[in-house]
Amino acid sequence: MVPTIQWYGKYIRMVDQRKIPSGIRWHFCRRYRDVIRAIRNMVIRGAPAIGIAASMGLALGASSIRTVSVAVFRKRFGEMADEMLNARPTAVNLKWAVDRMSAMVDKMADSPVDTIKSALKQVSIDILAEDIECNRRIGKNGLSLIPRGATILTHCNAGSLATGGYGTALGVIRAAHENEKDIRVIADETRPWLQGIRLTAFELMEDGIPVSVIVDSAAGYLMRQKKIDLVITGADRIAANGDTANKIGTYQLAVLANANKIPFYIAAPLSTVDHALENGDMIPVEERSGEEVLRFGKKNIGPSGLKALNPSFDITPARYISAVITEKGVIRPPLRRGISRLLKA
Amino acid sequence: MVPTIQWYGKYIRMVDQRKIPSGIRWHFCRRYRDVIRAIRNMVIRGAPAIGIAASMGLALGASSIRTVSVAVFRKRFGEMADEMLNARPTAVNLKWAVDRMSAMVDKMADSPVDTIKSALKQVSIDILAEDIECNRRIGKNGLSLIPRGATILTHCNAGSLATGGYGTALGVIRAAHENEKDIRVIADETRPWLQGIRLTAFELMEDGIPVSVIVDSAAGYLMRQKKIDLVITGADRIAANGDTANKIGTYQLAVLANANKIPFYIAAPLSTVDHALENGDMIPVEERSGEEVLRFGKKNIGPSGLKALNPSFDITPARYISAVITEKGVIRPPLRRGISRLLKA
Repeated sequence: MVPTIQWYGKYIRMVDQRKIPSGIRWHFCRRYRDVIRAIRNMVIRGAPAIGIAASMGLALGASSIRTVSVAVFRKRFGEMADEMLNARPTAVNLKWAVDRMSAMVDKMADSPVDTIKSALKQVSIDILAEDIECNRRIGKNGLSLIPRGATILTHCNAGSLATGGYGTALGVIRAAHENEKDIRVIADETRPWLQGIRLTAFELMEDGIPVSVIVDSAAGYLMRQKKIDLVITGADRIAANGDTANKIGTYQLAVLANANKIPFYIAAPLSTVDHALENGDMIPVEERSGEEVLRFGKKNIGPSGLKALNPSFDITPARYISAVITEKGVIRPPLRRGISRLLKA
Repeated sequence: MVPTIQWYGKYIRMVDQRKIPSGIRWHFCRRYRDVIRAIRNMVIRGAPAIGIAASMGLALGASSIRTVSVAVFRKRFGEMADEMLNARPTAVNLKWAVDRMSAMVDKMADSPVDTIKSALKQVSIDILAEDIECNRRIGKNGLSLIPRGATILTHCNAGSLATGGYGTALGVIRAAHENEKDIRVIADETRPWLQGIRLTAFELMEDGIPVSVIVDSAAGYLMRQKKIDLVITGADRIAANGDTANKIGTYQLAVLANANKIPFYIAAPLSTVDHALENGDMIPVEERSGEEVLRFGKKNIGPSGLKALNPSFDITPARYISAVITEKGVIRPPLRRGISRLLKA
């Protein structure tokens, strides 16, 4: 698997995810605003990957600040951090990464600017490495939830491409495959961006994991036909009570899994938890342009003048979630208590 | 609105629904097998429209049988009828129309072949006219279920294009609009064929009815946001107990409407009822080629070698259906009793 994002000398290199599976094209970011644009325009997506990109982007931005005054540096860095925060609203990993970078700046207030710059780059490298390690732990922790021979439904892409590598939901799937659990994956195509058919199918086929895709509307039918044993998705933000924001359509899957008595799991690093939010209703849901729905490539699908609503995420209430698989262990309901305990652990 | 299907001299003319909204292209059928192909290849779709096409196709086929022997004619007609029945499996209207045509042949066993041929053409003309009238009644009967100012979610296309004209689900919506109920429609795009974004949006915009489209995955989110007041869809086959086959994704909407305490209505002519089937599990569900999911136009979306499952319909259990709106009245639960009563009326 190609690395989703990495330092490439002084610059950042990421796989342009809009081009997959047609080809692997590298997208280079030379300024921190290139990173903001790349996040906004879906060159890179997936909550953990966005967090990594934000940290690298800020390190890149920091390196471009020309001053020896720490005060000037901090002011400018703070502005960049605010800008970065606004790149996309729903995934909390972005905020988590920005906060971690800002905390480092605060902590090093007595160091020379160049030392702070180097430290920031190192933090971004650490965040990437930790994310991959974290995903492997999520994979291992999720293993006990995957029965031998299971058919697993997943939505969007919570794989290597959505993270530093290995994946969250797909991390669990990869771990099950590596442990010869003889699993099979059904991937929702995930309109409008088709991450399922383009990214998830691509990743799983590269790894030799059996995968078929379906339109998003077919998930309930297959559940009712008893052709799906469990559902796993990633998460963009988890509130203190366990309510979870993830790609639009996740809520529907959770309701349908519940109606069909199928377990519904979230796989996500603990950095996805936003403990400041009491419940999911407080999570901001990004509305993207209707054009994403109305066009395929450059072609208009519908009549001209047609409007589309395009909420990009939805909120799954905690009561529909059978467990949250994290790097520190599996959280069973009541999620609020389990989340709080693991965050303190 | 252009007529979905009509006699055009000796031939049949239908709007090629694969080309909408790019343009209105007429598709001519000169032999009954052209009609079978047109049904199979989605030139014409929608349960009532398929029924009309089947009846016209059989009248066209009958006219081409060169014999004065009624026995020879009946044998050949029977073969054509069997072929027509296999065009698509799920919508019962096709069978209903074929049965009605066959019954006419049986009834006229003592008439000259030419007289039977004329009568068959007339039956197909009657079926078309009755369907339009039937839809207007469905629209009128559904009116009482539509609150003023309602936002209505619909799936696929159960409109003028899916019928002889006016539509079933869209018939109710049209009637509400004509009665100045100040309604607004949200149309699921309906992958893989995108009937919602292409056909439903096209029809409603032509009639000046406010419409926005969403990806199929966003329906649950909007329901939970209380942005949808009710759901109406058409039906391809209704079992004796009220279980209903309709476009893939309908079952999901019904479960989600139920979870969010939103009424879920089916609008369909009584010819959609298959009284021979005790429940929905007995309804055959068509599996179409995975290519419909994997390609957009001629372009492959996913990695090469990827497989897709493509069930075209699903079954909504009667318990999720708030009412069935028919030309003879609104059937409330328990649906079995109401259906049986109206069929006898």
